Amino acid sequence: MNSIRSLAQKSKEASRALLTMSTAAKDEILGAMIYALRQAVPDILVANDADMQAAQEAGLSSAMLDRLRLDGGRIEAMITAINTVRALPDPIGQELKREIRPNGLLLRKLRVPIGVIAVIYESRPNVTCDAAVLCLKASNAVILRGGKEALRSNCAIAQAMQRGGESAGLPAGAVQIVESTDRDAIRELVQLEGLVDLVIPRGGEALIAAISGWAKVPVIRNAKGLCHVFVEQSANIEMALRIAENAKCQRPGVCNAMETLLVQRPIAPTFLPRIIERYRAQGVEVRGCEECCRVDPGLVPATPEDWDTEYLDLIVSIRVVDDLDTALAHIADHGSKHSEAIISSSIEAQKRFLQEVDAAAVYVNASTRFTDGGEFGMGAEIGISTEKLHARGPMGLEELTTYKYMIEGTGQVR
Amino acid sequence: MNSIRSLAQKSKEASRALLTMSTAAKDEILGAMIYALRQAVPDILVANDADMQAAQEAGLSSAMLDRLRLDGGRIEAMITAINTVRALPDPIGQELKREIRPNGLLLRKLRVPIGVIAVIYESRPNVTCDAAVLCLKASNAVILRGGKEALRSNCAIAQAMQRGGESAGLPAGAVQIVESTDRDAIRELVQLEGLVDLVIPRGGEALIAAISGWAKVPVIRNAKGLCHVFVEQSANIEMALRIAENAKCQRPGVCNAMETLLVQRPIAPTFLPRIIERYRAQGVEVRGCEECCRVDPGLVPATPEDWDTEYLDLIVSIRVVDDLDTALAHIADHGSKHSEAIISSSIEAQKRFLQEVDAAAVYVNASTRFTDGGEFGMGAEIGISTEKLHARGPMGLEELTTYKYMIEGTGQVR
Repeated sequence: MNSIRSLAQKSKEASRALLTMSTAAKDEILGAMIYALRQAVPDILVANDADMQAAQEAGLSSAMLDRLRLDGGRIEAMITAINTVRALPDPIGQELKREIRPNGLLLRKLRVPIGVIAVIYESRPNVTCDAAVLCLKASNAVILRGGKEALRSNCAIAQAMQRGGESAGLPAGAVQIVESTDRDAIRELVQLEGLVDLVIPRGGEALIAAISGWAKVPVIRNAKGLCHVFVEQSANIEMALRIAENAKCQRPGVCNAMETLLVQRPIAPTFLPRIIERYRAQGVEVRGCEECCRVDPGLVPATPEDWDTEYLDLIVSIRVVDDLDTALAHIADHGSKHSEAIISSSIEAQKRFLQEVDAAAVYVNASTRFTDGGEFGMGAEIGISTEKLHARGPMGLEELTTYKYMIEGTGQVR
Repeated sequence: MNSIRSLAQKSKEASRALLTMSTAAKDEILGAMIYALRQAVPDILVANDADMQAAQEAGLSSAMLDRLRLDGGRIEAMITAINTVRALPDPIGQELKREIRPNGLLLRKLRVPIGVIAVIYESRPNVTCDAAVLCLKASNAVILRGGKEALRSNCAIAQAMQRGGESAGLPAGAVQIVESTDRDAIRELVQLEGLVDLVIPRGGEALIAAISGWAKVPVIRNAKGLCHVFVEQSANIEMALRIAENAKCQRPGVCNAMETLLVQRPIAPTFLPRIIERYRAQGVEVRGCEECCRVDPGLVPATPEDWDTEYLDLIVSIRVVDDLDTALAHIADHGSKHSEAIISSSIEAQKRFLQEVDAAAVYVNASTRFTDGGEFGMGAEIGISTEKLHARGPMGLEELTTYKYMIEGTGQVR
């Protein structure tokens, strides 16, 4: 038997043990994990130094290096996240429906764990900790597979969590890490029907596409965010400027940042020069449609590829559109069903935008940057689903559960 | 452009039009469909006669012929189903969460349609009607692909529904049928990412396996039911006899019928002879484990394949087990996560069975035959999901929806 399959079999066994674990027992394990992580800080920093050195030698970008880097503060932030999850209500056992049927059967619909969840991610070592604690609090076993550049850091974090957790009753195999950096390990993992119940890939388009092609088990993709802000003709100009700047600039490297700004023609002459000026002040490269370039000949002309590009950088594309219908069609054609916003004072336009845009989160007069588990009041998130089934948008504890029907009778037959 | 893709593009356009359709408008369309179906009864019966004649010439089994056959009563039952769905509350727009965040954002989580749903099924022509009305009531466009032996009947039903529906405002393309009987049409349909949002296959293992292999869009399988009844040692014998007989015999050809009976050793000497006698009286072929065959040497010895076989027929396999753990392990190894039952007077055994069995529906002292949308109070069902994600067990209107977040602000930024 090869190693990935036997690892997943251990996960499946652990998931059975987790089925009957009480909330108090899970919270005690989370507490023990915090204790072990604090003790392991020196080991984790040594492992991270080795990862950082290898990454520098391999010539990773400074943005990538920053994502990879750990320090005392970042480890403390991981511990804060564990405490947040520990304090959240246990989703397992929650009664979603309870009914006595006319034949006397007691029918209940209860939240239960999914089973074994594989999380495949890139770079940031804190995901190792976040994914493990969210899966555990929802009574799932987790198989972690981070990027190879963070392998030493991820292993040091996972080992500390395992050591601490197992001292408090965590079933062996409940939190496991795939140490192979071979892509074939991922391919095999996502084909283990009957052992792995769900795969959550978080990362770049190449990773997501590869996994989608290979997978035989269900996948909830946390894929790209190609988000738009539409400045409708009735928009409050100051509000539109503030939101268009924030959605692009506050943290351009994340999936809920805006990539394309749509501006309705009547408001363009007043709005465009001012937003372009703001973007220039922030160091944003502005790529404009023909009409934008006429307003400001200094802009880079946008190519058709621009409308389909998730820059994740200080670059924005701007298009002038005739009307709400054109904006809606542009979003339907180029958006990634993640987060979309309209800035408008028209109740009618707001209503149509909310209803007709097909995305996880649709905003009126607010920045797309709010699509986030913390901002939505979930306490924590394992990622942001761009799927339409099972979980949409930020995935917290509830999204890591399924349900089953429990039916109790007194001998009923049909 | 080929025909399947252009058909799905029409569905996508129709799904956009359905987004803004009111409950009253949808219910009016359903009413017009009933009127048109009543008018089309003679045409439908002529089409069904042609299907039946071809099926007889092709040598289909009498069970298959019975599933294919329509008559006035069966068409009236379809109409009753439309009326039932029409009377159900509209799931669309239902508010699943509403919260004002500390920053003043109004966050709402609302039920919305999935979009375009492809339903791929075999034989029974009433599925054409049921699937169309359930999808429509949940504001989805539907693409129907029935078995080739029912093509004439399905087309006659769909045409009547389209004609009636469109006279009352149904968008063209909202209810479409794939007329090609080529398997390549299915392969193409389930690979149309961006056009088809969900595929629901209902049918035999070969169909489900082929679609799982081909699919690039999400699939909710309505696959096999390999259901067990476990007669625990403390069971009330009369109740156990009644349930074990009902679960096997009342309608053996459906997915929630029992295939394997597990009997705990201490109760076997009294229970086994009596249940075997009952099965014989009902014409059931009994295949037993070694121990069963010692109790009754007239039984057919069960082979290892028996434990993994969905008979869908008057055949049952019986195994004597040591204890609850052995029964749970047998169900975990051989069950299909559909419906599982324990007959027991022990609160402890009941509790463990409910908690530890991983299935859509877990029963205490009742027949597995109750796993059904109607019996669960859903009014109607499009099928029974054997998946763990999105929808589990009977799929009614709610299971044909997703959600999105609508966030309304007054200029909030991060």
